[in-house]
Amino acid sequence: MRSVGGMPQIGKAGTPVTHICQAYPDRVEVRGRDLSRDLMGRLSFTEHFHLLLTGREPTEDQRYFLDLLLVSIAEHGLMPTNVAARMTLAADPGSLQGAVAAGILGAGPVVLGTSSECARLLEEALASGREPREIVEGTLAAEGKVPGFGHPVHKPVDPRAERILELADERGVSGQHVALARAFREAVHQVWGKPLTMNVSMPIAAVLLDLGFPAAAAKAVPLLARTAGLLAHLAEEQEQPIGFALGAAAEEAVDYGG
Amino acid sequence: MRSVGGMPQIGKAGTPVTHICQAYPDRVEVRGRDLSRDLMGRLSFTEHFHLLLTGREPTEDQRYFLDLLLVSIAEHGLMPTNVAARMTLAADPGSLQGAVAAGILGAGPVVLGTSSECARLLEEALASGREPREIVEGTLAAEGKVPGFGHPVHKPVDPRAERILELADERGVSGQHVALARAFREAVHQVWGKPLTMNVSMPIAAVLLDLGFPAAAAKAVPLLARTAGLLAHLAEEQEQPIGFALGAAAEEAVDYGG
Amino acid sequence: MRSVGGMPQIGKAGTPVTHICQAYPDRVEVRGRDLSRDLMGRLSFTEHFHLLLTGREPTEDQRYFLDLLLVSIAEHGLMPTNVAARMTLAADPGSLQGAVAAGILGAGPVVLGTSSECARLLEEALASGREPREIVEGTLAAEGKVPGFGHPVHKPVDPRAERILELADERGVSGQHVALARAFREAVHQVWGKPLTMNVSMPIAAVLLDLGFPAAAAKAVPLLARTAGLLAHLAEEQEQPIGFALGAAAEEAVDYGG
Amino acid sequence: MRSVGGMPQIGKAGTPVTHICQAYPDRVEVRGRDLSRDLMGRLSFTEHFHLLLTGREPTEDQRYFLDLLLVSIAEHGLMPTNVAARMTLAADPGSLQGAVAAGILGAGPVVLGTSSECARLLEEALASGREPREIVEGTLAAEGKVPGFGHPVHKPVDPRAERILELADERGVSGQHVALARAFREAVHQVWGKPLTMNVSMPIAAVLLDLGFPAAAAKAVPLLARTAGLLAHLAEEQEQPIGFALGAAAEEAVDYGG
Repeated sequence: MRSVGGMPQIGKAGTPVTHICQAYPDRVEVRGRDLSRDLMGRLSFTEHFHLLLTGREPTEDQRYFLDLLLVSIAEHGLMPTNVAARMTLAADPGSLQGAVAAGILGAGPVVLGTSSECARLLEEALASGREPREIVEGTLAAEGKVPGFGHPVHKPVDPRAERILELADERGVSGQHVALARAFREAVHQVWGKPLTMNVSMPIAAVLLDLGFPAAAAKAVPLLARTAGLLAHLAEEQEQPIGFALGAAAEEAVDYGG
Repeated sequence: MRSVGGMPQIGKAGTPVTHICQAYPDRVEVRGRDLSRDLMGRLSFTEHFHLLLTGREPTEDQRYFLDLLLVSIAEHGLMPTNVAARMTLAADPGSLQGAVAAGILGAGPVVLGTSSECARLLEEALASGREPREIVEGTLAAEGKVPGFGHPVHKPVDPRAERILELADERGVSGQHVALARAFREAVHQVWGKPLTMNVSMPIAAVLLDLGFPAAAAKAVPLLARTAGLLAHLAEEQEQPIGFALGAAAEEAVDYGG
Repeated sequence: MRSVGGMPQIGKAGTPVTHICQAYPDRVEVRGRDLSRDLMGRLSFTEHFHLLLTGREPTEDQRYFLDLLLVSIAEHGLMPTNVAARMTLAADPGSLQGAVAAGILGAGPVVLGTSSECARLLEEALASGREPREIVEGTLAAEGKVPGFGHPVHKPVDPRAERILELADERGVSGQHVALARAFREAVHQVWGKPLTMNVSMPIAAVLLDLGFPAAAAKAVPLLARTAGLLAHLAEEQEQPIGFALGAAAEEAVDYGG
Repeated sequence: MRSVGGMPQIGKAGTPVTHICQAYPDRVEVRGRDLSRDLMGRLSFTEHFHLLLTGREPTEDQRYFLDLLLVSIAEHGLMPTNVAARMTLAADPGSLQGAVAAGILGAGPVVLGTSSECARLLEEALASGREPREIVEGTLAAEGKVPGFGHPVHKPVDPRAERILELADERGVSGQHVALARAFREAVHQVWGKPLTMNVSMPIAAVLLDLGFPAAAAKAVPLLARTAGLLAHLAEEQEQPIGFALGAAAEEAVDYGG
């Protein structure tokens, strides 16, 4: 399908290409490396994820913090993602991937966090050179919120965010983006008139950027992490089902207005 | 909603319980441990996944092989899961989790592998004490196939399966289930009249069982692994889109019969 | 991808064919008919659905009852499908199709009904010539339930089921399958010792079969109907959001066992 | 979960309410009406959809055009939505709702059409009183495209769009929005320098608005319609599978760049 002037282009000229993986009769090549003879048994799953995503094996720091960030955001209790997944498995016990998919669909920005919006905020701040306070005032005026700040449960701090910053300082990876995240916290405090919790999405974005991860990682990391949590909930659902009880509790909370 | 005699029970009496995670204002508890003070910075993502899934931290061998198995099955080229995910992102660039969900939905047993069916086969063989040859004959007669054998691409062996078995032997974790998997390969050869490729699903199941993983792991491991591959493909799609070209190629391959 | 002996065949020889629809520069052909010059403005959506599904336009009775059955099962309050969909839209307001998909995934047999299992039961009964009582005893022993009987809310009858049977009798379309459904109700009463509600899934299946619909219709009809209900709930969610309240109610109903 | 100043509010005070449906032991109430005694057997599925969506039964014109619009957009050949759905069913034949969900996820704006963007364009034009030509110039400059214009297959006109306009004129429902849609076509021609196809999304939006449908209908109508097409493709897939062939064709179209 051809492009129509400036109209949306559906379809591409030239042969489409992927650089991620190809299977052959005698081997599987992943990012130019031999999966079974080179990668299997040598890379951890986290290192392999980095390779798949970026085409390069991670440095020691990149691996350490990728593990840290994935662990930080994999689980947070019976979030709507886990509720939806468990109800879906209860309705169709034969389809685990359907339940995982339902949980993934519920991992929208409002629930899972806003690491990619935080990343965008940090990058634009660095690129523009504008003062954090000015950006906070502008963002609050335009959108009513600043990504990365506020949390419905954790007060006065988000322990996951603090631990990430602590380890980033300890290991000497805190750079421009982490400094900027802290500056934004200060600015939010000033503009808001009181401190707001820096939630875990902000240090996730800041550390990924300071370690040279591509922007895409800010969305991919929470989604992969949350999938691990979903799978644990679904394994528990198969042993101790609560899916229908969850649906019943939700239904009973609502009145019918006719 | 109450049970109706012996009819399916929808709803549960008593308070539903989860043991996986709870968030508090000052901490997050995962399987009874403090996420930010204990787990973050100490566990790798793979170790954390094991803890979420089973409630226990893995032994050295369990961690090593969980990493190995996840790496073995994360990617295999432009499988239908990746095609569906990339087409979905092309149709709605604003929804990454929609594209991931579409890819997960395509990870049905025929495409992703049959590790949980292999696990069931191995467990039933051990429990019944029947000879592999007899089971193969019976399974082939009933279902026309034996899970874990045959592969459309890899011949004469699946390099991923061979590498898993090699490392399992090397590290001394090959036990009853791995031995049985090898016995099944032999039996399939005898019954079929020619050797069939043992595909990666079989050693994944055998090693998980020999290492004491719960049966649920046989489905969860491939799904988590495949999510990592999906996220890599979607990151590439955002940079070098081929989603519409994939859809066009699929459409052009089909005739309309009116 | 080639077949491997008797192993599962992935891929087909010969050009794949579809008979449903093809788009040309100057027209769209649906089941051999011109969409814009013939079908649009003449067929109702229900008649068009019948044409898409079967390749034929419906008779007057087929159209009337297809409308009736779709209306009967489109909505049933805040079922888990609607809860999951509304929570998903709340988490990602930008993706309506993600929320619809999440709702569809929750439409597994336990929640949406078992019309296709009822259809199978009725067809096997007719084919085998066995007595309903005998089949009920066998099915109960094997599976602990008989599809189409029992309902958590409607007692002593399901008003939707009764209305379908009433109209089928009135319009003279009640045939072998409807008679058999009634015989099964009687048999369930005898075997169970007390009457069980015939739920709406059973007359849906019976009427579809008596009107000559293909077996596939027994699954497709509830899914299409439920999509209409989902879209209504999502439109309401956009105006009067309750998605997060539903998630909160579900979470609060669960204890954390550590 | 409480609001945090101007930060996103998750959770609501007060009892959540729905007005769509409630089930009782002896009846089901839909929008204040008795489903089995009033609606079943009287309303067509299209009329019921209107009632669910808006709370009111449709006028004769609203019903006629809702049928017309649903029929116009239900099917368009092997679009990516149908490809994804068929591949998904091939990978997991046991989960029809998983395949439907995968197809729905692929129904993003780029593929399914832009009726809701067209609706927004028409409403803003009417509200602002600006000239179509001026709006077209502004929209093209800002976004590179004008929703509702251009089509990869249909040239020089989209027969579905023309038929909708023809019937709207014939039945006297063409109003301000339809007039504006025609004015936009003229303006696009002038600004672009050559005529562009008005695709079906534009008259769908214009007619819905001229008939007093809520804005939400512009998204809901294409999604419900497309679900009918998906179900037909999935029924065909169960009889004449082409899902794997589609996946294979897509894979073969891509090179691996290592």
